[in-house]
Parts: sequence; C-alpha cells; structure tokens
Amino acid sequence: MAETSPIAIICGGGPFPFSVADAALRTGRKVHLMPIEGWADRDRVAAYPHDWVPVGQYGRMVRVARNAGARDIVFIGTLVRPSLKDIRLDWKTIKILPRIYRAFRGGDDHLLRNIGKIFEDDGFRMLGAHEVAPEILAPAGDAGRVRPSAQDIVDAKLGLAVLDAMGPFDVGQAVVVTDNVVLAVEAAEGTDRMLQRIAALRRDGRIKVSAGRGVLVKAAKPTQDRRFDLPSIGPTTIANVKEAGLAGIAVRAGEVIVAEFTAVTEAADTANLFVTGLAPSSPP
Amino acid sequence: MAETSPIAIICGGGPFPFSVADAALRTGRKVHLMPIEGWADRDRVAAYPHDWVPVGQYGRMVRVARNAGARDIVFIGTLVRPSLKDIRLDWKTIKILPRIYRAFRGGDDHLLRNIGKIFEDDGFRMLGAHEVAPEILAPAGDAGRVRPSAQDIVDAKLGLAVLDAMGPFDVGQAVVVTDNVVLAVEAAEGTDRMLQRIAALRRDGRIKVSAGRGVLVKAAKPTQDRRFDLPSIGPTTIANVKEAGLAGIAVRAGEVIVAEFTAVTEAADTANLFVTGLAPSSPP
Repeated sequence: MAETSPIAIICGGGPFPFSVADAALRTGRKVHLMPIEGWADRDRVAAYPHDWVPVGQYGRMVRVARNAGARDIVFIGTLVRPSLKDIRLDWKTIKILPRIYRAFRGGDDHLLRNIGKIFEDDGFRMLGAHEVAPEILAPAGDAGRVRPSAQDIVDAKLGLAVLDAMGPFDVGQAVVVTDNVVLAVEAAEGTDRMLQRIAALRRDGRIKVSAGRGVLVKAAKPTQDRRFDLPSIGPTTIANVKEAGLAGIAVRAGEVIVAEFTAVTEAADTANLFVTGLAPSSPP
Repeated sequence: MAETSPIAIICGGGPFPFSVADAALRTGRKVHLMPIEGWADRDRVAAYPHDWVPVGQYGRMVRVARNAGARDIVFIGTLVRPSLKDIRLDWKTIKILPRIYRAFRGGDDHLLRNIGKIFEDDGFRMLGAHEVAPEILAPAGDAGRVRPSAQDIVDAKLGLAVLDAMGPFDVGQAVVVTDNVVLAVEAAEGTDRMLQRIAALRRDGRIKVSAGRGVLVKAAKPTQDRRFDLPSIGPTTIANVKEAGLAGIAVRAGEVIVAEFTAVTEAADTANLFVTGLAPSSPP
C-alpha cells in the first residue's frame, strides 16, 4: 500500500534537506518542509511546500505537521546549538521543557535521540534520512578516479579504530590520520574547522609531512541512533581536504551522507583526491 | 652511595628543563645541559653548564654527555617535529638512520620510546624527569583557593575516560568537557591551540554555554613510557583556560608536570580558576 501522507522534513542548514526531499519526491511521496528559522537555506526552501518554524516552537511544529497531514517526520541538516536567550518558547514547548532540559545535558546524540522521543509521544514516526533516501549514503568502494594507497588504507583503518574507541563518549565523527599519526580529532568545531586547523598547522610548520599524504576519516558513532545527525561530506569537504594537504577521504560505507554525489566525485577527481567507502566488515 | 656523575639534560623548549635541573641540583646532583638549537631557551640555559646540540647530531650528543662524565640522561621540554630538510646529520646519526626512520613512523610516544632505546644501546640510562624531580608532578587535591563544583568533577571524570579510551592510539593528552559534552580533543595542535579554539568557537557563537563552566582535563596516556613527554601545565595554560571561558583544570595526580607550581597556583587564584589533581584510583 503506497504511503500517501507527506513526509514532514524539519530542515537544518546545508544542502542535505533538499537531497532528502528530492529523493522522497522521486519515490512518489509528497513532502512538506518545516525549515528552522536562521538555519535552513531560504532560497532553496522556496521550491517546496513549506512552513517556517522558529527554534523552540515545538507546538507550532506539531500543528504544521498535522495540518499538512504528515505522520512521518525526518530531521536533517546542520544544526547549531541555540542559545537559550535566542529561543522564544511556545506553550507546548514550555510544558515539555523539563524533558528538553534533560535532553540538552549530554552530547548531540543524546540531545537528538531525546527530541525524537518527544515527537513519537505525540504520535509521529521519526524516520532517518537514510530510510527515506538511502542513495544519499556513501557506498563501498572508490567514488572517483583516484585510488587510495596502501598507506592511506592503513591510516583510514587507524582512524576508524579511533572513532570507534571514542564512540561511547558521543564526541566527534571525524579524525585526520597521516602516516600512522592521528593529527586531529573533531569535537565541537566540526569537520570544516578541523580541516582548516590542519591547513594552519601546516602553514605554521607544526605539521611537517609533505602535502598529498593523510586521510580524513568519517564514520557514524557506534552508539548513534542513525535517524539523527549522520555524519556527512560534500563539495566543501573536498575543498577543505585539498587545502589541508591530505590525499583523500575515507568513510565507513553506509554510515556517511554524501551531499551532491556527482559534484563530490567531480571535485575529488579535479583535486586529485580519493573518496572511498570502506565496508563495515573490513578486517583491521 | 651518592651518585656523583652529572645528569645530562637534553633540553627542549619551555620552562621544564630548568625546573628539572634545579630539582636535581637541590638533591645535590650535578647537571650538564644539552640544549637543542632552535628549541631551548637561550637566556635560561646560560645559567648552567651546557653544550648546545643541533637537531640530528646524535653523535655530538653522545660525545658531549661522555665528556661531561654523565651516565644518566633526561629528555625534557617541548619539541617540534623537525623537517628532514632542517637537519644536518652527523656520521653517527647516519649510521642509526634506519632506526630513527622507523621511530618517526608513529605517534610521539612511539618516537620518543625508540629514541630512548638508541641511547640505552650506547650505555646511557634514560631517566624520566619525574624520577629526577618528583616534585614537578601534580599532587592530588586542589592546588589553589578555588574548589571544583560537583559538575566540574563529573566533567573531569568524563574527560579522563575519553583520554583513557584514546590511549592505545597515541593521540592527545588533553580534552575539554563542559556539562557532560566533550567540546575539544587535542591532537597535533597541542593544548594551547586547543584552548584558543574553544575561545574562538565561543566568540563565533558555536559554543553557547556561558563562561565559567567546563574543565580542561589532562592525563598521561595509559600506554605512555613515563620517562618521555609527560603532559604538562604552566602559567600559560592558566591564561588560555581563562580565555577559553572554562572553570578550571583537572589532571590525574602524579601524571602531569606542573611548571612553576607557585606561579600556576597564584595565577589560578587570581583568575578564579580551580586546579585539581584527581587520584588515579578515583571511582568513576
């Protein structure tokens, strides 16, 4: 039985919400966007049915989703933790404030999982972006023309091991490894700033290894609820990896969203970088 | 039997070599400094018997130590991984180049451990700075006037758990944790730059938690050979922790060098920051 209700897509920043919306539309489902004010891309939102929602207006979000006839909700896009003073709460939000407060007392993963439960208690079904649009996840194998070297694969696997070890602590989803040395670990700064740090350390002579070596490694946290906040790469990531002087990007296949796959592949080929998906079962 | 031979102290950057030299002198031992050109503090070196040594002149280092009558060698101070092109090798270094090359193919810990073995094969005894000067290690308890809050202790213990989890990978020795969230993990950038990153993320609104919360946590790696490269804090760390808007510093007692303890304590009191040593056996 075809699902006729639209998917309500809560849109954070960046291109991902639109990749997911387009993928849903291709499968014949309708969508209704709920872009978050201050986060979502205003120009791109305009192309879809939508209602803007301010941060902290949970009640409004529920009304918009119900008015649109939606039962399934997807949350996708980058989010910035809001300052409490920037939030104008509606009454429904105030009622659930203790739950939200508890949700905020932990890492991003903890936050999103608990926000998800709140929606489910209101009768919605939270779906992961990858359930609506599995084609946005990185496949196994090399995406473009460039192949990783044997040392790149060694570095990539060391990176995955570090990410797995940090998994229980809800920290980052990315590291940089060059010639068996972990040069950077991502936390609150995000992947782009971590890569800019590598570029700066190289300019300052703090990283001496020659350009064209080293790997950006990304994977989902082992404990992560995959419906929320999967790690991602996009054309900007390619540009920053090049600027950082690395050889390429390794992700665990099926765990990382690739925004604009064709653009990523073409940019990687042009920059002479590899982009590879490692199978989850790859032996160490 | 009192040891009459001087301790040869290979000096990297920063104030630690002189803390160790002074501690050795207080116990009645002589010292002979071998400051590394480009790293060690030229003004402070002048106060001690010394011979400058360029990076990569292992043969010269051995000759200097033997001429001084030293059998014990300590390596202490900050080091910057040299670029191969900056190194003028002497013949003895060229002979051991394959071993040095292998030493470089790993993290700092791996590097230092293997350089240590090379000295031991030449008949020297490598001592840890903490063996010569145990008083430079952070004790358990609060160093200054300010006490950590219950949440600070929770954050500190989360930080220690993250550091322990990353230990096998020879990554960083410091993290920043605020209200149960790991905001930064140190790798190649070092502690000062990690703290400057927290300050920048706060200025840019990427970290919204109010100033005066959060902990810099430092500990030795579980796999670390304690004769080399123990983590450290000093007056600069206090200034950067203040600038980052944190509440204080927690270290695992006995594992972290405190340079200029009195200056650190006074700076912390003035900045209204705590500095606390957690006993290794603290329950989680």
